[in-house]
Amino acid sequence: MIDKLCIVGVGLIGGSLARALRAAGAVCDIVGHGRNAAHLQRARDLGVIDRAETRIADAVRGADMVVLAVPVGAMSRLLKEIAPQLAPQAVITDVGSVKGAVITAARAALGGRFPSFVPGHPIAGTERSGVEASFAELYKHQRVVLTPEADTDPDAVRRVTELWRAAGAETLIMSAEHHDEVLAATSHLPHMLAFTLMDALLKLDDRETHFALAASSFRDVTRVAASDPEMWHDICLSNRTALVKALTHYRLQLDGLLAALERGDGDYLRALFTRAKQQRDAFPVQDKGRSVD
Amino acid sequence: MIDKLCIVGVGLIGGSLARALRAAGAVCDIVGHGRNAAHLQRARDLGVIDRAETRIADAVRGADMVVLAVPVGAMSRLLKEIAPQLAPQAVITDVGSVKGAVITAARAALGGRFPSFVPGHPIAGTERSGVEASFAELYKHQRVVLTPEADTDPDAVRRVTELWRAAGAETLIMSAEHHDEVLAATSHLPHMLAFTLMDALLKLDDRETHFALAASSFRDVTRVAASDPEMWHDICLSNRTALVKALTHYRLQLDGLLAALERGDGDYLRALFTRAKQQRDAFPVQDKGRSVD
Repeated sequence: MIDKLCIVGVGLIGGSLARALRAAGAVCDIVGHGRNAAHLQRARDLGVIDRAETRIADAVRGADMVVLAVPVGAMSRLLKEIAPQLAPQAVITDVGSVKGAVITAARAALGGRFPSFVPGHPIAGTERSGVEASFAELYKHQRVVLTPEADTDPDAVRRVTELWRAAGAETLIMSAEHHDEVLAATSHLPHMLAFTLMDALLKLDDRETHFALAASSFRDVTRVAASDPEMWHDICLSNRTALVKALTHYRLQLDGLLAALERGDGDYLRALFTRAKQQRDAFPVQDKGRSVD
Repeated sequence: MIDKLCIVGVGLIGGSLARALRAAGAVCDIVGHGRNAAHLQRARDLGVIDRAETRIADAVRGADMVVLAVPVGAMSRLLKEIAPQLAPQAVITDVGSVKGAVITAARAALGGRFPSFVPGHPIAGTERSGVEASFAELYKHQRVVLTPEADTDPDAVRRVTELWRAAGAETLIMSAEHHDEVLAATSHLPHMLAFTLMDALLKLDDRETHFALAASSFRDVTRVAASDPEMWHDICLSNRTALVKALTHYRLQLDGLLAALERGDGDYLRALFTRAKQQRDAFPVQDKGRSVD
């Protein structure tokens, strides 16, 4: 049971976690903090949080669990702000899409309290955002990756694991480096391909005809190009090494396809398309939750 | 009014056209031809066609409108087979995703009857296939591109235009070359990106973890990688020049992104993502029909 939970950033992700923990009876008191007082009040009106604190020092004070549910680029500043306010028993966790950079920021900001920080990433979300879009079932049967370091307190890991289990999720432990590599290939790379496809069409002379005749394949592949540019700017820069590696690997495959097209190598194309289709057909299509990405 | 309509290939595309024309009262008699007798019988049982002919000569005989609703790779053979059977008043059209290669095949197969051939491509479809998936509303408010040549009979173009209008679609006239370039960029290229992304992940050592953590962005971008390999083999080879051009243009943009990532150029990334998002947000999301692609 969490006595006092502090959610920093009460949007889709933070709000859904608050709702899930309340529904599970896993928390007594939920304090929310956010930059926008009106949004925060809305979270209180909806009953997602019990108390709204626009000053982060007041929000964190006395909390035994602090969840940072903000974009990766905001983590460093917030960690510095909460560090002096943390109660002795407080455990801190986050929901960032990149773990290596957040760990570096947490180590610098938290100093001796770093072992109480458990890096986390729930692989869930929807294309919507804001507390109005939050719902208690978001994490049900979804995966949350935790990437504790060698000096992370095992008891803190246990408490964060319990928190996510209470919210209905399954936790996985892996290294931050492995997480960042996997997410670079499965989430950050697809976003890059989508942004680039949209931009490639924009650069054509005859873009009006192109957009007029673009149908469902184009729509699907570019859906995530509508994602927040600032958030993706942060993710790219904070997971640069792994993303460059994933993109370089992808470009190598694309070069292979291009060369096969140029030489009219039908066997190469058929084999590639067949492999890809077999794997895609085997891929789980169920879409209960959607990646925060 | 079409007196006798012959649909060669009574699947989603051909079946939906038959249903739409019947619902509009635009056709008297519909004859269907297909390789698979059981599928053809099913089309008849469903009332999509009035008569099933497994011999193409019998199907085409006396028809005043022949629609080839088969994959691009099958066009050449079928055009050769129907050529000697065509009634003097017959107009022929097709639904292929590539127009240049079909026109070349039609010119060779039809000889002096080539002016009666109107190349067409309905930009509609769903991810399903087969006559069971066909429905009369598939083409409602969708676009059909017609790519007549200089020697195409204007009266034939008029009759094919009327056919698609009766089915609820809007027709656009453009050159085959322009069509093939636009479709290469808006449909064939996204398919190549999806197949390649699926294959890039397959080639990683740790692919199980990757697939386990792949979420909605990956699912969306790779959806069309489940498309029929044989159909895409045909499309790639028959639209090779335009696809190589589109893929080369795309790779240039991807190289720009990769270089920006390598030098940590946040401004470049933010500008790219912002342009892409603005254009994607302005893109019509309505999805009444889906591209045959």
